[in-house]
Order: sequence, then C-alpha cells, then structure tokens
Amino acid sequence: MSPPGEFSLIDQYLTGLGATRDDVALGVGDDAAMVQCAAGESLLLALDTLVEGVHFPADCPAHWVGHRALAVNLSDLAAMGAEPAWALVGLTLPAADEAWVAGFARGLDALAKRHGVAIVGGDVTRGPLTVSLQITGYGGAHGLRRDGARAGDELWVSGRPGEAAAGLRIWQQGDRQSPRWQGLLAAFLEPSPRVALGRRLRGIATAAIDVSDGVIADAGHIARASGVGLSLDMHQVRPSARLVACLGGDEAQRCYLGGGDDYELLFTAPPRARSSIRQAARDAATPVRCIGEARVGDGVALQGGESDSLMPAGYQHFSAP
Amino acid sequence: MSPPGEFSLIDQYLTGLGATRDDVALGVGDDAAMVQCAAGESLLLALDTLVEGVHFPADCPAHWVGHRALAVNLSDLAAMGAEPAWALVGLTLPAADEAWVAGFARGLDALAKRHGVAIVGGDVTRGPLTVSLQITGYGGAHGLRRDGARAGDELWVSGRPGEAAAGLRIWQQGDRQSPRWQGLLAAFLEPSPRVALGRRLRGIATAAIDVSDGVIADAGHIARASGVGLSLDMHQVRPSARLVACLGGDEAQRCYLGGGDDYELLFTAPPRARSSIRQAARDAATPVRCIGEARVGDGVALQGGESDSLMPAGYQHFSAP
Repeated sequence: MSPPGEFSLIDQYLTGLGATRDDVALGVGDDAAMVQCAAGESLLLALDTLVEGVHFPADCPAHWVGHRALAVNLSDLAAMGAEPAWALVGLTLPAADEAWVAGFARGLDALAKRHGVAIVGGDVTRGPLTVSLQITGYGGAHGLRRDGARAGDELWVSGRPGEAAAGLRIWQQGDRQSPRWQGLLAAFLEPSPRVALGRRLRGIATAAIDVSDGVIADAGHIARASGVGLSLDMHQVRPSARLVACLGGDEAQRCYLGGGDDYELLFTAPPRARSSIRQAARDAATPVRCIGEARVGDGVALQGGESDSLMPAGYQHFSAP
Repeated sequence: MSPPGEFSLIDQYLTGLGATRDDVALGVGDDAAMVQCAAGESLLLALDTLVEGVHFPADCPAHWVGHRALAVNLSDLAAMGAEPAWALVGLTLPAADEAWVAGFARGLDALAKRHGVAIVGGDVTRGPLTVSLQITGYGGAHGLRRDGARAGDELWVSGRPGEAAAGLRIWQQGDRQSPRWQGLLAAFLEPSPRVALGRRLRGIATAAIDVSDGVIADAGHIARASGVGLSLDMHQVRPSARLVACLGGDEAQRCYLGGGDDYELLFTAPPRARSSIRQAARDAATPVRCIGEARVGDGVALQGGESDSLMPAGYQHFSAP
C-alpha cells in the first residue's frame, strides 16, 4: 500500500525535523512515536488537513505548504493558550517528487524550530496532494476556550486582519514580484501563528478563537459557544495602511471583517483586564486592538460607521436586542 | 475555506463518538481538544492517512472506512504495546454527503468504543475522499520497538496472515455474497487490531511491528532496525484452512508471506519467553505461532520447503551468511 520510495522519502526528508526535545524518546521510524508527558499537565490536541486547490493554491511553492500546514495547527493551539510540543505529519502525494518533499520539509522544519516543536511522526501515501498535520501541546491547568465570553467583556483582535485575504488576491491576480505587496503576500503565504500571545492570555482572556474563517464568522463561533451577542465597533475596525493602499478603504474593511486565513487571535476579556492584555501584547511583541464588546443576546452586530454595506455577503446581520 | 455544512456535519455526526473517558476535559467543538495526562506515563502517537482507491476500494461502504481508519492506527499502537486513549479524525470529502458521514461515524464509533478510545477532535474539509486519523495512547515505561531483536530470538506472528489479501481479491473479483468467503472478507474489511496482545507482550517481546506491508516486508523492517537477519521456517508458515480452500496451497502461502493489510503482530522474543508468550496469547484470545528465528546477519531468508518459488516478486531474497 506504500508508494515506491515512501520509506526513503521519510528517512531522507521527514526524519529529525523541528526542535530537539528531551521529552522525545522515539521519533520518526517506528510504528508510533514515544514522548514523555510532564506530570499533572493537560494536553491540547489539534488536527488540520490542507488540500491542494482548497487550502493552498495549486502553484504554491512546497516550503510554504510545509509552513502553512504547521502554522494552522500552531494557531489552533495558540487560540487555546497552549505551548506546542510534538507534531505528526501525513503527506499524500501524487508521485514521489523528491524536490517537492525537500521543500515541504524545509518550510515545516523552520517554523517547527521557531516554536520548539519536534516532528515525531511521518506518514507518506500516494494520492491527491493533501497534508494532514496533528499537533499536541501543554495547556497548563486551563485552556482558553470559546465558551467563556460574558456580557460586558470587551472583544479584542491581534495583528492585521484582512491582509491574508489581500495576499491571496495578489497571488492569484496581482503583481507577485512588486516590493510594494511583499508584506501582504507574506501575510497569506507565511502566517505567523500567535502562540506567544495566546500563552500569555491564559488566565486573562475569557474566550478565544483563531481567525481562520474571518473576523465576523469566528466572532459568531465565540458568540454561539458562549451564549452572548458580540458588537463590533466599526470605528475601531481599522485595516492596516498597506491593506487600504492595496484595496481601498471599503474593500479593505470587507477583507478585515470577512477574509479568512488570518490566523490572528480573537478574544474576549473584562474591561479590568485591559492593562494585563496590553502587557501580554508587549511581551509577545504582537499588536492588539479592542474592536467591540459582548452583550446579552446572540449573534454578531456591526455598530457605528456605514456598517450595513460592509457586512460580508452570506453572513446574517443580527441586530442588537 | 470550509465546505458548506462542515459545522453541521461535525456537530451532528462527529461529536461524542467512541468511549466516554474521565480524562477528556474538552472534546470536539473548540480549536483543540483537551485531555488530562496521567503522571509519569509515556505517550505513543501515530497518524495514518487512507486514500480512496489506494487504501480502500472506491465502492467500500462508509462504515468500513470508519472502522479501517481507526483499525490501522490501533494496530500501530498495538505494535508498540500501547493502550489507546484519544483519537482525532480529519475527513476530506468531495461533497457534504450526510449518509456517508453517518455511516463512517458508525464504523468509527463502534470500534472506538470496543477499545476505550474517545474521538476528541474532528476536522471536515472539501477535497478528494481521504481520511487522516491520529491516535494517542499510554505506553508504560517502555514501548515495543522495532530495533530490539537479537540473534537467537524467535520470530512469532499472530492470527492468520494472508487472509486480508484474499478478502480484497474476493471483494474485487469474487462472489461477495457467498457465505463461504465471509470470514476472508471480514479479515480485509474489518481487521481486528491486536491491541490486547500487544499490551501483554510489553516486557516479553524484544521487537514488534504490525503486518501492513506483508510478513516478509515487515520482517525486513525489524531486521533492518535491529541489525539482525531473520529466517522464516517454511514448515511453520501455515496459511489458514479457509485461505487454502479459497486460493490453493501455493497462492495461499504467497498471500501469507507477501499480502498486506493483515494488521497482525510480528514480534521477536528469546526462546525462554515461550510460555509467557503462550499465556499472553491465551489472555488476549489471539492465536500466535513461532515461524522463524533471528540470526547474525541481515535481511529475511526463507528456509525449508520450496521457498524460492514462494518469495513474493519485488522482495530481495537475502541468503543466510
């Protein structure tokens, strides 16, 4: 059931990737990996699958696919406030393309090292280009869940939402070489999961999620899980200068609210936590902004500004109670 | 990036599957699952991907795909002597086919309950039909690795190797309805991972692997990892009566040696461990047979009987030193 060359691909390119960790007793090469679990810790487990043409463009260089496969999983752990430790990667390939696997491994390795993650397991199979990556991390006593937002909490977001959606458009239709758009392209191709910020928000934030489906859609997930309504203050929804320069103000705001793949953190906390949040953001070297608040009710509402024309198509616009 | 209906498919069919475990703090529905790790234990982690048309036939009923996706991972843990605990499933589907997902979930749930596994994470994406499943289990102080076989050890195998390969042929070309072949079909469609046996072989076996690529190929993995040669005694390579009845003696032996997907355990142990092995097999209600021995050298050799004509094509026949 293995394609020709599976074992040599694993041996040559997928062994020993990422950080070296003392708690790894056995990495790639046996039936399973073996790691030593720290006593009394809770473990956080996530798994994400990326399909060519759905989650990354068909012409995407292999090292970006390697980066992205790990980044989306790191982002899941960041949204739980977890510290990533070990990952396993399942690679499905149409052919045993050594150059592609080498590039993929390079992108995966670099990001894994940056976050102290050991790649402890690898599986290569034949089929349409697909990557499944599973990650395990430590969560302390409590993780950041989606269901802890309370009426009166403020809603915050990290970084520069909307830039990844703009980067995808540039990749698909624009001038990929232009120095002007490299920052937006990088936001799409090499997202930086907010692991450092997430970890520092443990015990501060009441709920958190990573922005993969878009700010409004992911705010909706928090609202639904927590049983609250969320209002976004359109005066605080401020796309970055380069996003506005690329798309114009209205479209930049639409991308901010509805674009996916940002892998920023969207989180809630009571107003008294403001200074702790700003300190956490400084320590994590990650910008944050308060963009709204939680209230009794349900759904996500936009308030202030010309909000109605900005609600992305397909999302229901709930009114405040 | 999610197909329409992803969330409802997860909510409706992939939530709460498998066993209920006290150590699961948070299952399907957040960015990651949270579990409590027992103090001082080592964890075993495995990930396997199944692609339609490669790892299961395109017309395979969904509940068998669900069973198989978990079974191959359970088998990886069995080969490490581990006790399975938590699994995450990534499902890639061409369309939001509710009936298919319901069937898949049914097969997954039944096998997970049988082995005390909680399905704690689920991810549904759009793309060619592919299942990635990741499993984590407890391994005690030591796992069964591939690299511990020593010259003088005996080589053992569980169950009835070759039956899965025969079952696949019946599925593809034979009379699927015939009562006569249901046992062979079940060996292919619903493999029983040898978790109970693997756990009992901890501290007894010196090396172990599960038979996914075929007895000779997987013996080769043990030989290479352990730095020994393995000799199979052809007088002990005895295909089951129903396998011989289906394929005839010669072809049955070829399937025994070269057929894949058996998910039996192949393991080594010193001769003094014989009675412990037989006791472990009785306790696990799993038949075992000693089929060869490890010696100084490398590779896999067949000895006794008309071995040369039985060596599956594509495998190098190493001679004893």
